[in-house]
Amino acid sequence: MYSKVIEASKRLAGAAHKTPVFSSRLLNEHAGNEIYLKCENFQRMGAFKFRGAYNALSNLTPEAKAKGVVTYSSGNHAQAIALAGKLLKVATTVIVPNDAPAVKLKAAQGYGASIVLYDRETVAREDIAKQMIADHGYTLIPPFDHEDVIAGQGTAAMELLDEVGSLDYLFVQCGGGGLLSGCAAYTKNALPQCQVYGVEPDTADDATKSFKTGTLHTAHNPPTIADGLRTPALGKLTFPLIRQYVDDMITVSDDEILSTMYYLWTRLKIVVEPSGAVSLAPLFHRKLPLQGKRVGVILSGGNVDVRLAGELFANISD
Amino acid sequence: MYSKVIEASKRLAGAAHKTPVFSSRLLNEHAGNEIYLKCENFQRMGAFKFRGAYNALSNLTPEAKAKGVVTYSSGNHAQAIALAGKLLKVATTVIVPNDAPAVKLKAAQGYGASIVLYDRETVAREDIAKQMIADHGYTLIPPFDHEDVIAGQGTAAMELLDEVGSLDYLFVQCGGGGLLSGCAAYTKNALPQCQVYGVEPDTADDATKSFKTGTLHTAHNPPTIADGLRTPALGKLTFPLIRQYVDDMITVSDDEILSTMYYLWTRLKIVVEPSGAVSLAPLFHRKLPLQGKRVGVILSGGNVDVRLAGELFANISD
Repeated sequence: MYSKVIEASKRLAGAAHKTPVFSSRLLNEHAGNEIYLKCENFQRMGAFKFRGAYNALSNLTPEAKAKGVVTYSSGNHAQAIALAGKLLKVATTVIVPNDAPAVKLKAAQGYGASIVLYDRETVAREDIAKQMIADHGYTLIPPFDHEDVIAGQGTAAMELLDEVGSLDYLFVQCGGGGLLSGCAAYTKNALPQCQVYGVEPDTADDATKSFKTGTLHTAHNPPTIADGLRTPALGKLTFPLIRQYVDDMITVSDDEILSTMYYLWTRLKIVVEPSGAVSLAPLFHRKLPLQGKRVGVILSGGNVDVRLAGELFANISD
Repeated sequence: MYSKVIEASKRLAGAAHKTPVFSSRLLNEHAGNEIYLKCENFQRMGAFKFRGAYNALSNLTPEAKAKGVVTYSSGNHAQAIALAGKLLKVATTVIVPNDAPAVKLKAAQGYGASIVLYDRETVAREDIAKQMIADHGYTLIPPFDHEDVIAGQGTAAMELLDEVGSLDYLFVQCGGGGLLSGCAAYTKNALPQCQVYGVEPDTADDATKSFKTGTLHTAHNPPTIADGLRTPALGKLTFPLIRQYVDDMITVSDDEILSTMYYLWTRLKIVVEPSGAVSLAPLFHRKLPLQGKRVGVILSGGNVDVRLAGELFANISD
């Protein structure tokens, strides 16, 4: 996977943003560590997902490109496929749960994707995708369990290490594990002494359980505010990569996620979605005994309906 | 003033942030110009005001530093004086209207300033300040009409030009005119062919009227959403500087300010306060016949209660 991440970075050059790395004296004092925030909320379409989607679509055969692709997604991957398809002139269809944030749906439509809505309580998205592949010859680009997707996501860690040099720790959020496995595989090869942590919402801790037991656990529509991390389970590819390259997993509560997010909005003045703040939450709340370490953190995205800020932050004190 | 800005930049080195300059393909397409956003929302305490305050306090005599300073402000200047005082070990008192945003008040208190509240409908803040100066020997650092404050604010334009090189236009918001006059004085000396525009809310267009007529106009508590620009009039120093160095003034409506701000939050993922978005509003809404120009824009600050986003953006369509 290490060499595939390096290949992906070449494909992404000029297409994906080399997102900035932010640091903050205030945040470092608060957290007691030297924190480097890789701001994937500034990535094209607002999340790291563009990396994997663009890498996967670039790598298709001309025949597959001509027929088009289909995917399912809770939101950001849908937008990413839609935008990558627009840029690479590949027709895209995205299968989206009908409770996905409106802001994410609209963006995918804006990039020219066809949208198919489904009810996640009653239908499996995989079944809808299979039918469309049989009918139209589409190629499926799943949201995380795909080598080119994983490799693309890993370029976020590659860029971070290239910019800040050595790190003692890297914290990455985990849903289906595409971002975590790509970043971990790259980092443990490039910088073996760096400890890589995966972070999950505590109500969606299937990956943490899977990681610790070695047996795949699933979570059915976990009720976390971090809508990007509601995936039911790790994938066939991401699970073994995470077992191999991740050093530990940790969980955080929705309150911890939201207060971390509030700090990013109000003190760092950046819009980060709940899933995007998950990776910083254990550091912001000092849930681990780290002091004075150089810590990389992936802020994975910023696609959230900002009009909901009043509700989201209702219980956070300044 | 040009040489004073250069001196200020030396005083600010290592104390103020050299804030990043953002650009966005999406925004450029939308506005039809090449726009360079100087992100003073990422400045220390969240606004450009730190530049002027720190420059002014650094320049005090040891005796004046020992006695302390007083100021009045609708918010960001108060925080700026408080933080500069903390860093330079100067005691600070800030006189703040009792309807100023709570988030701004709390920050000034957090930096250790003494706060005096007043009712802007019944009392003149200048009178309160005079009494405190007589009683305690404080030095007054007003929010804009002060040479060192103006020079400090001008360093925002200096950094922008240093980073992006030549610009055809520079857009700067105008309240009391400290930022506009400092940026204009620097820019018209460093790059005379650059056209400098001041931008005001249309309900607080005293500076526009003053600029166009040559006679000082005042506005009494103008009801604009851009709370940082509710100042009653230009100052004795800022008015002539603006007449000398600014090429033109333009006004924007509150709706135009808020839709520009919404775009910055949702597409660029940065938190900018209403006053901070004012300078971009005429470009975002194509109110001038500019096409394909290189345009600098100061995003002046990001101190806004993010919980109010639902109310602020209620009438904006995606």
